[in-house]
Amino acid sequence: MRITDIRESTGGLATTMRNAVIDFSRMTVSQVAVVTDVQRDGKSVIGYGFCANGRYAQGGILRERLIPRVLETPPADLLDEGGENIDPFKVWDAMMRNEKPGGHGDRAVAAAAFDMAVWDAVAKIASEPLWRLLSNRFNGGRADTRVLVYPGGGYYYPESGFGRLKDEMRAYLDQGYRIVKMKIGGADLATDRKRIEAVIEVVGEGRNLAVDANGRFDLETALAYAEGIASYGLFWYEEPGDPLDYALQAELTQRYTGPFATGENLFSHQDMRNLCLYGGLRPEVDWLMPDPALAYGLTETLRIIETVEALGWSRCRLVLHGGTQLALHMAAGLQLGGAETYPLMFQPYGGFADGVPVEDGYVRPTDHPGLGIEAKQALYAVMRPLGEG
Amino acid sequence: MRITDIRESTGGLATTMRNAVIDFSRMTVSQVAVVTDVQRDGKSVIGYGFCANGRYAQGGILRERLIPRVLETPPADLLDEGGENIDPFKVWDAMMRNEKPGGHGDRAVAAAAFDMAVWDAVAKIASEPLWRLLSNRFNGGRADTRVLVYPGGGYYYPESGFGRLKDEMRAYLDQGYRIVKMKIGGADLATDRKRIEAVIEVVGEGRNLAVDANGRFDLETALAYAEGIASYGLFWYEEPGDPLDYALQAELTQRYTGPFATGENLFSHQDMRNLCLYGGLRPEVDWLMPDPALAYGLTETLRIIETVEALGWSRCRLVLHGGTQLALHMAAGLQLGGAETYPLMFQPYGGFADGVPVEDGYVRPTDHPGLGIEAKQALYAVMRPLGEG
Repeated sequence: MRITDIRESTGGLATTMRNAVIDFSRMTVSQVAVVTDVQRDGKSVIGYGFCANGRYAQGGILRERLIPRVLETPPADLLDEGGENIDPFKVWDAMMRNEKPGGHGDRAVAAAAFDMAVWDAVAKIASEPLWRLLSNRFNGGRADTRVLVYPGGGYYYPESGFGRLKDEMRAYLDQGYRIVKMKIGGADLATDRKRIEAVIEVVGEGRNLAVDANGRFDLETALAYAEGIASYGLFWYEEPGDPLDYALQAELTQRYTGPFATGENLFSHQDMRNLCLYGGLRPEVDWLMPDPALAYGLTETLRIIETVEALGWSRCRLVLHGGTQLALHMAAGLQLGGAETYPLMFQPYGGFADGVPVEDGYVRPTDHPGLGIEAKQALYAVMRPLGEG
Repeated sequence: MRITDIRESTGGLATTMRNAVIDFSRMTVSQVAVVTDVQRDGKSVIGYGFCANGRYAQGGILRERLIPRVLETPPADLLDEGGENIDPFKVWDAMMRNEKPGGHGDRAVAAAAFDMAVWDAVAKIASEPLWRLLSNRFNGGRADTRVLVYPGGGYYYPESGFGRLKDEMRAYLDQGYRIVKMKIGGADLATDRKRIEAVIEVVGEGRNLAVDANGRFDLETALAYAEGIASYGLFWYEEPGDPLDYALQAELTQRYTGPFATGENLFSHQDMRNLCLYGGLRPEVDWLMPDPALAYGLTETLRIIETVEALGWSRCRLVLHGGTQLALHMAAGLQLGGAETYPLMFQPYGGFADGVPVEDGYVRPTDHPGLGIEAKQALYAVMRPLGEG
């Protein structure tokens, strides 16, 4: 078998929302198709991948660096021992050939989209859903049959008032979610407290609500918010300061006893190790949220899991960021703490297979081979022309 | 006045060399021209910039994100108070609009090329060499009339034997350099010790030689090298481990009393702060080497200087990486410790203005307006078509 082609394109997100730092009206996403000569059900197996939103499409890096390196590698050097499937670790090493250490940014995002397509192809060739393949290869056959999920949402809308925010949260509850998340830091603390209280009216208790500052606050503001929200007993207080400001995080952890969550903007196991070493986070209280669709893919996220476990963290404290089907498969097959999803946002990339219910805050992974992109119609509609066109 | 156009292109480096991690045969560089409607000497002022080598051209990020944001900004919003020159900080903020915190990688490289062109234009519009403009704006008019420089070189060549390496080092001495640098870690320790001894034969003493592992070593290897090179009394031992492995660096610093140098692969002031906080480096012994042509440009490097000074470092301990004229201007005008240069490597981007002598290891900045790219014929030949073509 061999990879016969690797294609990439840029997809768009049509939305007017914003968080504390950026607006998403011009956000783009890289889409990747890994085409193979393997036949399943009378068709060539094609793996599909895309990067999580928020970091833009990375077509230049894919076209100029990562894809050519893999296509120039002798095909046999990309296969597993039996020669009947792709070895995603060998593909990863090939795409990263001649890249310097450090500088984990856009390159990680490009690699993540590519790596997702590789793993999709690998699982399709194995005729297995990705979660089961991961379970068998890396988790002794153990898997969770359901995964805790929460919807990423609660952005700032251009409209004034809290009606649309409350409607959004009510829709999540109606869909079966129990824990929801909203953005803070895009308004002043007094306004944000009102927004939080409006949402708590909908979700019942603070413990059903996480808040996310998207790394905007300096120490003083982060502390003011910590004090201003402490009484709500929130599910977590996410990314209060700059993602690399470990000293700020360590100081905050001394002053706020509730859970923190952070890590979505750390794109390597080296950065995640530093967060654990220097950020003062508490393995029994706080949450780590790497995003496999930003941080060099599933392949690097396996290293992240290994790294944080070596530092005394349980993988149960990892709730994957990014709202992708990839995150759901990983959480189920590797028994992580849970996964974000975007049932309403970032369409068609957000959310899971069509018709999969959220029950009491949990989702069951499906048995479609690979990631199951074909089982999410709107997503398959944008990916299919890239692979089959 | 206004910026009338911003152009980018990709330039190549024809070389067969390699360091411990990558080979440079396909390395590319982004080139940027900022075209203005200001006339000087009967011609439109055009600022030129490029990124340092090692991180590839970033055309996609420049074309899709950074350049359109600046071109879409109302021109008056990019000017200084008097309205007669560009405010490079405003341009920087515009190019980084809607970018998330963290993830400092390829984006930083794209911004660095762009930011260099902006500062070149600013100094040309002010009819001043960049070093003097920096001295007056940020250093109370103080400046160094000469800058300590060392040639980045000593790569591995495909040829066997040490003849070409020794010839290279001899050529540096003939050109007036006193301190030279060579790569290690691309061979085993025994071979590298022989290479080091071969170079010391040329440069006289270990204190004239720095060695650079390019972040390749794990702790065990880094310690073995530390022990293996301790007796040479080298000028510095550069980037032994992964650039983000602060714990490794802190451990090493306990076990090797000679100077370390690191920081070229940290692309933000946040990362540099973490290195200073957690890397165990000694402000009186070790060296920091940010690269303004990789790390979001001069603009961000000013923040890096401010950050490390706040942590007790003298700016004299900063020796800028990257071998650009930009680094020379910054070192002179801001009175930093020195600058790397590439007199032979990475042409036409490496090295300073044509005909500028190296005297006893020091270089004097020239008085050409801006960066002086026009005074380096081979470099101007590749940049000029972008700006004037």
